[in-house]
Amino acid sequence: MALRKKDPDKFDCPDAIAGHGRPDPAAIYAAPGVFGDPRADVDLYGTGTRLNAFEARIAALLGKDAGVFMPSGTMAQQIALRIVADRDGLRTFAAHPTNHLTLHERDGITRLHGLHLVPLASAVTPITLADVRGLAEPVATLLIELPQRELGGLLPAWDELLAMTNLARERGWHVHLDGARLWESAPYYKRSYAQIAALFDSVYVSFYKGIGAIAGAMLCGSQPLIDEARIWQRRHGGNLMALYPYANVAEQSFDARISRMPKYRDAAQWLAELVAAQPGTVRVQPAPPPTNMFHCYLRVPPDVLAQRVTAVARKHGVWTILRTAPTAIDGITKWEISAGDATLALGPKRAQAVLEQLLA
Amino acid sequence: MALRKKDPDKFDCPDAIAGHGRPDPAAIYAAPGVFGDPRADVDLYGTGTRLNAFEARIAALLGKDAGVFMPSGTMAQQIALRIVADRDGLRTFAAHPTNHLTLHERDGITRLHGLHLVPLASAVTPITLADVRGLAEPVATLLIELPQRELGGLLPAWDELLAMTNLARERGWHVHLDGARLWESAPYYKRSYAQIAALFDSVYVSFYKGIGAIAGAMLCGSQPLIDEARIWQRRHGGNLMALYPYANVAEQSFDARISRMPKYRDAAQWLAELVAAQPGTVRVQPAPPPTNMFHCYLRVPPDVLAQRVTAVARKHGVWTILRTAPTAIDGITKWEISAGDATLALGPKRAQAVLEQLLA
Repeated sequence: MALRKKDPDKFDCPDAIAGHGRPDPAAIYAAPGVFGDPRADVDLYGTGTRLNAFEARIAALLGKDAGVFMPSGTMAQQIALRIVADRDGLRTFAAHPTNHLTLHERDGITRLHGLHLVPLASAVTPITLADVRGLAEPVATLLIELPQRELGGLLPAWDELLAMTNLARERGWHVHLDGARLWESAPYYKRSYAQIAALFDSVYVSFYKGIGAIAGAMLCGSQPLIDEARIWQRRHGGNLMALYPYANVAEQSFDARISRMPKYRDAAQWLAELVAAQPGTVRVQPAPPPTNMFHCYLRVPPDVLAQRVTAVARKHGVWTILRTAPTAIDGITKWEISAGDATLALGPKRAQAVLEQLLA
Repeated sequence: MALRKKDPDKFDCPDAIAGHGRPDPAAIYAAPGVFGDPRADVDLYGTGTRLNAFEARIAALLGKDAGVFMPSGTMAQQIALRIVADRDGLRTFAAHPTNHLTLHERDGITRLHGLHLVPLASAVTPITLADVRGLAEPVATLLIELPQRELGGLLPAWDELLAMTNLARERGWHVHLDGARLWESAPYYKRSYAQIAALFDSVYVSFYKGIGAIAGAMLCGSQPLIDEARIWQRRHGGNLMALYPYANVAEQSFDARISRMPKYRDAAQWLAELVAAQPGTVRVQPAPPPTNMFHCYLRVPPDVLAQRVTAVARKHGVWTILRTAPTAIDGITKWEISAGDATLALGPKRAQAVLEQLLA
């Protein structure tokens, strides 16, 4: 449920409790580091000095041979799974039932690629080693999402993750990482990106979400996988004449925000505590958040919440809830929060005042 | 064959014989009309005041109910054909053997959508009414490209086009327009865009090529077709978090260049005459060009041509041939020219001096 729709005056509200603040396109493209030398900046159908250097840089950071920048993770992940399925002659992949391909892509993986999900774990519990061990059906790929967004941003313990991926590899499955929020996960594991990515044969990472660019993703893996992925990118209609409007902003945003990931995680932790302390909050999940995101379950009726969002925006100049999702329990709605630059700028004191009014 | 690769000093060459000039990203995004009010400018997953108004505006110009902006024509056309194929329960489409889907998309239409081409006409002749009449196989869609790019930009006569599309509709086929260069075709027909588009059930148009934006396309048609196309856009990974980096530049470029289409066509006509008059030219096709583009067949050996391209760039400061394509005839290569702002700026006098050196 959208809570700010058709209320244009709210847009003048300068601050926010989550995210990186409202985008200003002119400022984004005028920022230092987005454009420099047009000779290097402009790519042509996937070839460009800066674009290809950025791909090589991210691939190296993840300890992979190669990377390819794509307009979206939807495209990147479907392509990775398709390549492996064709190679192995197997049309199945194992993943959590709430994985992005199943929930948010209108079943493109089946309608475009003819692949089928073998679900692991229930919709509300994370994948465990026992789930992987219990998989009786052959699959081409095991897809693991770090963190599990639909479970509020849960991360498996390192040893569990290691055991799951090792077992999958022993069984000959390709192991793919949905790393939409991988950058945000590293502070929890206290390991390098390459150490985490080493558990996976292919990795998708995103440049919006925590990184805060406009759009764009990268698929990294072995050289043959990435070479083939470029062919599929063309088939998908993602090999655009120029990708620099996304790719250059992605690189600049990466440079600006990658070192702030621990700060965003810390902010999510104090914010989750504040949310949990309010009378209108039923539960915060996970507590404490291992990344910069978490879910809160609220018992404030949606219409009351909508009025309070407006009242808070007017009184404090702070955006709070942009949208809520219904839950299976009558009267309880879910709010997803991702801490970012706006959260850091707001700080705990103002956040507390805001939350007390919002979630009374 | 690429003729300017690895010769970076050529990039400082200020002028060009074709196209709109080398893109300067910082200037593109700082241009008036690209960004205004961030509230309107920023779209979110396909919803945005300016984006949706632009879609409605182009759809209206084409006399269609609705339009959807997509990152690429590859995506837009595959989606249109898929929707119709599913509706009709027919996995075939009729088109010229050199259509874009078959030649330039790594067979995505088959590999992603399971559709198969029924070719009309030979690779070097345009589709005629007789070809359409002679089609003995059932098809879901007849795809017509205006102009036929791989034939140098040929346009069928209006009466032939009318007869072909009428016949296809009588037979119950969906008629789709690959209008990658539709904007460039209208001066020849001396008819409005809506009059041309009225012959088709769905229309794809592009915003780079003649319009000169960075990337982006629009699919226009009936409301149900476009509603379903948005679902498929998500499946393809083309429903990006924000499309404004392409869409706003597309609209601004459209406003800047749409009225110049007759000028580009006129420039192609004088340029084609000049090219045809050079000793190194075997043929210009079509002559005269009905749009802003044409092909020339050259008998200058590629290595000699490459040296002359550099020599011309040094002497005249003019970019000429960026790439040539081989032909079936030994020693003859093909050069595709699209007249644009750079051609207008160069003018016939400088163009003649350049061509005399290049195609001696």
